[in-house]
Formats: sequence, structure tokens, C-alpha cells
Amino acid sequence: MSVAELQKKVKELEEELRRVKHGGAAPREKITQMSGEVVDTNPYSRLMALKRMGIVSDYEKIRTHTVAVVGVGGVGSVTAEMLTRCGIGKLLLFDYDKVELANMNRLFFQPHQAGLSKVEAAAATLESINPDVTFETHNYNITTVDNFDHFMSRIQNGSLTGGSVDLVLSCVDNFEARMAVNRACNELSQAWFESGVSENAVSGHIQFLIPGETACFDCAPPLIVASQIDERTLKREGVCAASLPTTMGIVAGMLVQNVLKFLLNFGTVSYYLGYNALSDFFPTMIVRPNPQCEDSWCKKRQAEYQAKLAAQPPKEKEVIVEEEEVVHEENDWGISLVDEDEPAPPPGTISVVSGLAEGITVAYDRPAPTANTGAEEVGADDATSLDDLMAQMKAL
Amino acid sequence: MSVAELQKKVKELEEELRRVKHGGAAPREKITQMSGEVVDTNPYSRLMALKRMGIVSDYEKIRTHTVAVVGVGGVGSVTAEMLTRCGIGKLLLFDYDKVELANMNRLFFQPHQAGLSKVEAAAATLESINPDVTFETHNYNITTVDNFDHFMSRIQNGSLTGGSVDLVLSCVDNFEARMAVNRACNELSQAWFESGVSENAVSGHIQFLIPGETACFDCAPPLIVASQIDERTLKREGVCAASLPTTMGIVAGMLVQNVLKFLLNFGTVSYYLGYNALSDFFPTMIVRPNPQCEDSWCKKRQAEYQAKLAAQPPKEKEVIVEEEEVVHEENDWGISLVDEDEPAPPPGTISVVSGLAEGITVAYDRPAPTANTGAEEVGADDATSLDDLMAQMKAL
Repeated sequence: MSVAELQKKVKELEEELRRVKHGGAAPREKITQMSGEVVDTNPYSRLMALKRMGIVSDYEKIRTHTVAVVGVGGVGSVTAEMLTRCGIGKLLLFDYDKVELANMNRLFFQPHQAGLSKVEAAAATLESINPDVTFETHNYNITTVDNFDHFMSRIQNGSLTGGSVDLVLSCVDNFEARMAVNRACNELSQAWFESGVSENAVSGHIQFLIPGETACFDCAPPLIVASQIDERTLKREGVCAASLPTTMGIVAGMLVQNVLKFLLNFGTVSYYLGYNALSDFFPTMIVRPNPQCEDSWCKKRQAEYQAKLAAQPPKEKEVIVEEEEVVHEENDWGISLVDEDEPAPPPGTISVVSGLAEGITVAYDRPAPTANTGAEEVGADDATSLDDLMAQMKAL
Repeated sequence: MSVAELQKKVKELEEELRRVKHGGAAPREKITQMSGEVVDTNPYSRLMALKRMGIVSDYEKIRTHTVAVVGVGGVGSVTAEMLTRCGIGKLLLFDYDKVELANMNRLFFQPHQAGLSKVEAAAATLESINPDVTFETHNYNITTVDNFDHFMSRIQNGSLTGGSVDLVLSCVDNFEARMAVNRACNELSQAWFESGVSENAVSGHIQFLIPGETACFDCAPPLIVASQIDERTLKREGVCAASLPTTMGIVAGMLVQNVLKFLLNFGTVSYYLGYNALSDFFPTMIVRPNPQCEDSWCKKRQAEYQAKLAAQPPKEKEVIVEEEEVVHEENDWGISLVDEDEPAPPPGTISVVSGLAEGITVAYDRPAPTANTGAEEVGADDATSLDDLMAQMKAL
């Protein structure tokens, strides 16, 4: 080959390498409109089939949604990949870590990415997987004062249309970052999901937090499954937490499945879903807000939610307001029972399962704000499952 | 640059491109011995931490194990990736499909792999993720006569030491392939896991099959969660089944988590674990073998298992043999109740949860081999959960 030809070849190879490694250019063309056409070349055919199967009425709507993922580690990276492959409109990624070989026991990152920033490496891979998704990355720690303000502004203005994101997903591994997400979401009245895995890698959970309607992260001690771990010490100096791709993949799957149910209005969104890997146990529950919560924005959102309920027609108001009042007197942690006569929620709404379900425990004890009650005062299982079990017992 | 320098550059770029795209060379060095050292460069530190956390006594043992994955699609590819990242000794991959853009709504494969054989593309990616794992790929359909014989021989002789594999994982999407895996495993007395997701993408399951001890795939109609789908028509001509990366990721996670529990002897292995995405419901159960099973090898394995039980000390024999006898008279599908007095299994053994659990249904009806019973005659929930629920009801 001539020098010119060799130079051209070098340029082509460098371009291809850049594309394959960093996704700078798209390995597939962008697709203007989602189609349900059943051909091998259509990356959306199996998703659009959800309409034909009667599961989702308007799958294309997913392209209008924006989701922020805070923490792009074992859970967050898989969460972002699932949403990308589902064709979400826009993803905002926040993390300040670098990819290390020590992360290779979880899905997503590959050894050749070691040393790169997690958000940049993730965005490059995700863009090559689905160039139809818009990515915005922030390589910083959201808990510092300046970054926190910027984080808030992106949650408020980061959507495809310049408005609020649809959901914030917390996939972080420490208490401070969760509290920062909680603070931001309370102030912005932003619905969000919390997720976590235990230090021993064999349990995890997701939790849906709607300011004013459900407990915020500051209302009650964090609820964990099966093992007594202080969330504040999850990243202790010198301690290497165990992790498994299975547990993190399952938690990411539970998280994104509930995000899809919420955004696309199908099935029942779980308020809290736990996972105990040792026994394949998946408890569900709801946690009501704590009227003595130390977060003033949480209390403001609670007042707004109560006012909203009070403004509703009497039929709906009656049951829920009464229930809330009982809760406030009984339980400082806001963990409550739901009226057994409350009808089952229709598809697309949120399930009401209450009490500290079997197998769930609080991450640590905290002094109760008043003397008369404590974290021990928790309810038992919900009415629905009791009815089911009565039926099962009769069948025996 | 001179021609020689340019030629050298082209060669280097081609090599790097090959490595990045197809994993022909390892992006990280092989590691001779697993270490628990807590450094960023150790890909096994978070797995070896399972020992320090008291979950697994001998994590390194995973390197001695061989697992066969049949079907490298939405569930199988993620299954293979999880096992690879966990540092499994050897993986055998069987599939005859090519990667298509229509697969991009599931995890693992990327658009630049479209057109490649699934097993080859998977092995290349997996080898670049973890070069310590040995991969053996077979790009064929296991249901043809010649391929079936070869498949059998690899199950029998494919381990790292030339013996039987430790487990076969069925991650296929059709009835015929499941029946082929079932036939091979019955004949070879090979323990295996079956997995499946529904055509509407919102339910799935895994099942652990031990020839002679639990129902084989031919003993009873396949058990599925929540939706009435004929497994034989899962790949109907012209029908495009829906799929989601969430459901498939969760099913793969449930599968590999139970594989790890079985191989590394921790927690309780589930015989059957279902998943209903719409309600976040995860039923468990066990299915006993059908003494009238049409697979003669299954009946032979059942006789062997009964003989093994009979040879055990009276204490153990008593409960289980009696239970099996009752089952045989009651239920042609082999779906059985377990003695309520049976003690809970110790960690590392298999859970005994029985009956057709709530939310589980058979995939289709089949004429019963005798006139007196049918698929409807199934038990209710097990004693353990009943006790738990009685306690919960009292607490209310």
C-alpha cells in the first residue's frame, strides 16, 4: 500500500476503534419513530409487542420520559442499561467514581474501561447500544454544596422539554448521598425510587418515595431486608463489602420494572419490595410519612398532600384521612396499617400494602422524637394477603 | 511516518480492534489464584468478601465447577455473564441463533454484534470480561439426532476434568428444546435448572429438576406464572413475543443465585420460583415426580431414588417414603403436599415448599394417564408459611 493508502487505513481503523470502544458514533442509525414491525432489524419490535399483548396501551410514550440515575455502580449501571434498551427518552447520570477491576464482579462495565469515569464510560456504552436515547452526564459528588445546587437544578430543568425529570433513581451506596437525594426530592416535590443492597450481598430492596404521601428517607430509619446493617457505615474505611452480580441485577430489574409500570401505567407499582437471596423471599409494604420528620420540606409536602386529600370528594377523603390521623397518634416512624376495607387499587396505581413486613428490619435505631412510642410499634401484614391466605387455609 | 511505521500502526490498530470487538486477547491478565486482597485491581475482592461476611465458606471452589447454558438469548446470555463475572471454572454454551437488532431490548448483546453467531459473540465478550473462565461453544440445534448425541456427550464429558458438568441450565424459548434437555438429563441423571419467561413479558420462573427426586419436564405440564400460555406455541410462526430486559434480567438473576447457592452450599435452593411482574409476586413450590411419567429414564431414576431412600436410616426414610406413597395414589401430575411435621431444611439444602402455589398455573392441559385425576388436583401452601401466617394473624 502507498503512504496515502496506509494513512487512510490508519484513520479508518482509529475511527472504528473509537466507535466500538467509546460509542462516539452510532453502530446503528437513529430511529425517528418506534415501530412494531416484526423484522430482525427492528430493535423495538419486542417492546412494541407489549401493546399487542394487552400489557401497555402506549409504549411509544417512553420516549417522552426523562429519568435521573444517581450512582452508576452495580445497581445504577444495569438500571441505566435496562432503561436505555427500553428506549427511554433521556437519562441523566450522576457519579464521581472511576471504573476499577474490582467492579468486574458486577454486570455492565468491562476490564478495558478500568480507569475511565463511570458516567463517561457508561454513556459511551449506552449510546452505542441505543443512539435514540439522550444522555447527560455529571462526573461529581452530589453531596458537596455547589454540586448539590447544580444537581437540584438538573432535576428541576433536565427533562427533554427543559422541565422536571419524571423520576430520580437513587442507586448510591452510602447514607449521605441518599440523604442528599431525599433533601432535593422533598424540596422539589419530586417522586423518586431508593434502592440498596446489603454489605453481605444477599439482600436488597427498592422503595418508592412520593414527598408528602409516603415516608421520606428521613422520616424513618432505612428499612432493609434480613440483615442488621447500619446504612451509614456501608462504606466503612478498610471494609470491603461483598457484592454479587445476581443480587444487584435482580435489584436493578425490580427497580426498572417498577419504573416502567409507573411511567407506562400498567400493573401495580410497589412502594417497598425487598429481596432475601438466601430464602428467595420478596416482602412488600408501604411506609407512611412521619409527621415529626426532621426535614421541613417533607412536613410541608405532607401538609400539601393532606390538603389535596381534603379537597377530594368525601368518599375518597373519608377513608384515607381517618387512617392518616390514626397513624399520627400511634407511630412516630410513620409505619402504618391501611384500612382493611380500602378497595384494591386499579391497574396503574400504587399498591397499598402496609406494616413492617416479615423479614424487613430497620437499618439502625434512632431516638424517638417523643417518649411514648418507638420503632417497635409496627403493624402486621395487609388485608389482601390475609384474605388470600385464609382462602388457602380453607383449601387445605 | 514511514511506510514501515504506518504498517506497524495498522497492525497494532487491527489487533486492538480485534481485541475490543471480539475479545480474542484478554484485556486483563489471567489470575492463577483467587485472592481476597482489597485493592482496586482485584476483580475477585468483592466475591471473596462473601467468606469474611460468613455467607460462603469456600468461594474459590467455584473455579472447579462447570455449567452448561443451553440457549444464549435474553435469559441465557445474562446467566452466562453473571457466572463469568463470579469466576465459574468453565461454561459450555449451546445455541444456533444469530444476534439480531431485534434482540437489543434485552441485556448483553450490542448492535455491533448483529449477524454474528450468539455463542461466538457471547464467548468473545465473556472472555474479555473474565479470561480466567474456560469457554466451550456449540453453534447448533440440540434437538436434531446427531446434535443431540453430541450434546449428551458434552454434558457427560465436558467438565474441566473431563467428567459430567455440575449443572445444565435450560434458557431456551421452545418446548422441543426443553424436552431435549429433559431427555438428556434424565438419561444422564444430571441435575438441571429450567427457566422461562411468558410471551407477554410480565412473568417468568425457574425450576430445579433432579432426576428421580423432583418432577421432570415430562412428568407434569410445565408450570407457569399468572398467564395462560401454551409453551409449545411460544415460537409460533408470525407471532412476535414481547420481551423486557427487566423480566429477563430478574429471571437470570434468580437462576444464577440459585446455581450459586447449590454449587457453593449456602442458603436454601428453591425448587420452583415464579415471578409476576404486574404485582411483584414471587411464588415458590416443589413438584414431585409422576410415577406414570412417559419418559422411561425418569421412571428408572425414580426407582433409584426410592431405593436410595429405602437404604437410608429409618428416621429419614419414614417421613419421605410415606409421603411419596400418598402422592402416587392421589395425583398423577406428581404435584404433592409435604408432611407438615418435616423439619425445615438446614442451610445449603433444598427447600421443601409444596403444592401448586397461588399464582402458578399449568401451561396447558394434557389427558391424564388414568381416568380418576387431573391437573386440578393440586395442594395448597406448605406448613411453614401457614404457621408464619397464623402468627401474623394473631399479631393483628
